[in-house]
Amino acid sequence: MRVLGIDPGSETTGWGVIDGDRRRYTLVEYGSSKTKANEPFATRLLQICEAIEEIIARLQPDSCALEDGFLKTNVKVTLKLGQVRGVAMLAASSLGIAVSEYAPLTIKSAVVGYGRAEKEQVQLMVARLLRLEEIPQPADAADALAIAICDLHTWATLSRQSAAAG
Amino acid sequence: MRVLGIDPGSETTGWGVIDGDRRRYTLVEYGSSKTKANEPFATRLLQICEAIEEIIARLQPDSCALEDGFLKTNVKVTLKLGQVRGVAMLAASSLGIAVSEYAPLTIKSAVVGYGRAEKEQVQLMVARLLRLEEIPQPADAADALAIAICDLHTWATLSRQSAAAG
Repeated sequence: MRVLGIDPGSETTGWGVIDGDRRRYTLVEYGSSKTKANEPFATRLLQICEAIEEIIARLQPDSCALEDGFLKTNVKVTLKLGQVRGVAMLAASSLGIAVSEYAPLTIKSAVVGYGRAEKEQVQLMVARLLRLEEIPQPADAADALAIAICDLHTWATLSRQSAAAG
Repeated sequence: MRVLGIDPGSETTGWGVIDGDRRRYTLVEYGSSKTKANEPFATRLLQICEAIEEIIARLQPDSCALEDGFLKTNVKVTLKLGQVRGVAMLAASSLGIAVSEYAPLTIKSAVVGYGRAEKEQVQLMVARLLRLEEIPQPADAADALAIAICDLHTWATLSRQSAAAG
């Protein structure tokens, strides 16, 4: 199974694609897409959408996942983040790919095995699970890979449960 | 000039299209698009996007406008609203239509002539300016028409200024 994790941001949107099952994860590709702050926001949204559509068309993931986080307390920042998030979800949805959302605690538990892990611990574990020599940069891409690992972990757990029940 | 005003919401997205110049506005069509709360949010975003794309393809507006409002204080609600808003902006942007955003005070000033007008006054003036016998329903559609009037008002003012300068 192949999964695309996305960490949307109005300036930098990180993404990561991994293959795997419950036992082993393999990195396919990761990266980030930047938009210019001086461009109209509608244009930046279009750029983010096109970037995600290109990744999906090229790497053909089976599933897409985002963090279901409401950490921003500034309403203006939250609204902007929501706009980018909506566009990322739409890009996947319009190409027929299921979109899952995971709470930060769920992602940390899936990657580190501990829901209150620090951001740095999560990034170190992402590198270790994918057998990378360094932590992926920028941090947005590492976060996107953590989300993808969580998605794969969840799918694998669900399919194991249904196999045990069947 | 023809303008599309959009009032995005996660349950109901109102929209309205009007023709006009600074002196006279004519209603083309208005309506609202509802999505089901029990469907996956990514699917609802896709439905909203497709609804707006259909309106743009059919009615061919020259411009699109949204309210630039940050009134929601609940972070979760704001993030959801942002997602719908982003998708609405993207739908217009991807079809090559300029997207403008107006503060609530600007919209009220353009429609009623008074930035602190009540919501009901704005809706009454929308009906009067468009020579309608009743206030458009649902309220989301009336709000979308107010945004469209503000956009037309702004374009007409800008073109008058550039004509006076030229």
